[in-house]
Amino acid sequence: MLPVKLAGLGYYLPERRVTNAELEATLGIPPGWIARLTGAQERRYVGSETSAGMGAAAGQRALTQAGIDVADVDLIIGASTAPQQAIPCTAVFVQRELGAPEGQSACFDVNATCQSFLFGLHTAAHLVAAGAYRTALVYSSEITSRSLNPQERESAVLFGDAAAAAVVTASAPGEASAIWHAQFATHHSGAELSQLRGGGTLHHPNDPTTLPFMNVFEMRGPTLFKQGIRLAEPFLDRFFATLGWDRQTVDAVVPHQASGPAIAMFVHRFGFHHDQLVINFPTRGNCIAASLPLALAEAVESGRIRRGDRVVLAGSGAGLTLGALALTF
Amino acid sequence: MLPVKLAGLGYYLPERRVTNAELEATLGIPPGWIARLTGAQERRYVGSETSAGMGAAAGQRALTQAGIDVADVDLIIGASTAPQQAIPCTAVFVQRELGAPEGQSACFDVNATCQSFLFGLHTAAHLVAAGAYRTALVYSSEITSRSLNPQERESAVLFGDAAAAAVVTASAPGEASAIWHAQFATHHSGAELSQLRGGGTLHHPNDPTTLPFMNVFEMRGPTLFKQGIRLAEPFLDRFFATLGWDRQTVDAVVPHQASGPAIAMFVHRFGFHHDQLVINFPTRGNCIAASLPLALAEAVESGRIRRGDRVVLAGSGAGLTLGALALTF
Repeated sequence: MLPVKLAGLGYYLPERRVTNAELEATLGIPPGWIARLTGAQERRYVGSETSAGMGAAAGQRALTQAGIDVADVDLIIGASTAPQQAIPCTAVFVQRELGAPEGQSACFDVNATCQSFLFGLHTAAHLVAAGAYRTALVYSSEITSRSLNPQERESAVLFGDAAAAAVVTASAPGEASAIWHAQFATHHSGAELSQLRGGGTLHHPNDPTTLPFMNVFEMRGPTLFKQGIRLAEPFLDRFFATLGWDRQTVDAVVPHQASGPAIAMFVHRFGFHHDQLVINFPTRGNCIAASLPLALAEAVESGRIRRGDRVVLAGSGAGLTLGALALTF
Repeated sequence: MLPVKLAGLGYYLPERRVTNAELEATLGIPPGWIARLTGAQERRYVGSETSAGMGAAAGQRALTQAGIDVADVDLIIGASTAPQQAIPCTAVFVQRELGAPEGQSACFDVNATCQSFLFGLHTAAHLVAAGAYRTALVYSSEITSRSLNPQERESAVLFGDAAAAAVVTASAPGEASAIWHAQFATHHSGAELSQLRGGGTLHHPNDPTTLPFMNVFEMRGPTLFKQGIRLAEPFLDRFFATLGWDRQTVDAVVPHQASGPAIAMFVHRFGFHHDQLVINFPTRGNCIAASLPLALAEAVESGRIRRGDRVVLAGSGAGLTLGALALTF
């Protein structure tokens, strides 16, 4: 048990709403296809927003909710898939855009695609619990809309842009807030089921053999879906066995917002009731690493999740990596 | 104090040696210029090696040195600047290339450019010390040679390719090995002093306004050097004050191998003797995140660093981020 709390949560949504009708027209998809296949109704795409700008906006809101001054942040973890630029890491630019005094915080990025936020939160929680830092800001900021492949409509319609952030501090004596358990497992046989081949040393942007399709996302949806479900059942059984909680006693389950059908599996296969689930996929889409903290932040804002609630964050993503984390909010 | 040890270290060097004479001929630089300016004599560049392949080779050697089977690794942290591809994270491919059984380890990447290894090691140490994992593999694998700008000779001659890895486990009762303290500080005013503008959401590879120069490294060397030195003096004073060690009692100081003149500052400005320093820059170049663990691994292999020695790892890098970590090996 780590005696830490999410002292504040915040999020940022780009102003531009992209409806199914707009996407269906752009991509040449029959009307109604997106909602029927994925459950999505709309998503946001950035205009002039940047990764660091969105991360800082979400971070500032999390700090305001926590009542903590930006000058007191001593750790900034950027937990996102795509950086703003290759060097330096994006958390550096969030330090700047937050107006955080330089030299007073350490900045690094963590990346495990959809699981980035959970890994970042788990890391921050351990560092804060051990006293290495006092106030950690963990944010996820994803601009998915620049890396979609209009030829692959099944994936192009799923994603949205967003940022979300959490402030992690030690719980005060007597506070119930804690992180109880986290579990992660990576299955490399799924590495090619959702991938973006470019953007690294294998297909360098300046290499003439790097082709445009390598710089956009690709997904083998049905195989990824089946493999994710098959692996998630025993993964969650093991998670709850170690955790020692009965699934029915969880106040809120926040799934990674992969797609409508993927979220439905939490009811149909993983043993939860529909009213335990926190869902924002229909209006936000899959915002990769930002999905989980965004759904959490919106649920806290609406009062759906309150102090003292038992919350489980869980999902699967590229890797293929499964993750789950249990906390008392 | 974290009761963990570096149970094994390993490294991988690409076969191809690139001498100053070869580089001077290629870049049109006067003979002797590179050695005089930087202290480098040669460096390695990859041929067909990949980021994950080099990371796995280094990791396997670290596991062999530790006497630990790959099946016992439950955490793989990829602590490097450049990924192999944008999605999924590179640690996934290292899990595969190591032959590590899938599902039995969690994989994520950590990025803070030159400080990636120190952040990754610090994270792994906390996770292992707290019992979240038993056997962590932290590796850095850098292919710098694909992102150099031949027009910017001052930086193009500095870098080399390499990978290095460390296995982190709990210290056995009675073992002296421990991590005593780590300190990091990021100064965003230095973000543009060493940067690579492309490779992210700001200058997407498929964006027609992304130009080739944005996809290679750029450095304002003299300013970076001066600012790094100015910040490092009080940073190290604070580090040693908290740590409580006299600098003269440190058995080995492993600096980030930024350049010959940067390493010399540890003697001229930071209060160490030359024979305390571990230096491999002349034959390896600056291998970004891999530099520090490579120098450490080579020093352990040669017998320069032995069990029980007091070791300080320290340096500065893009961000601008300073880092230092003290351990008993």
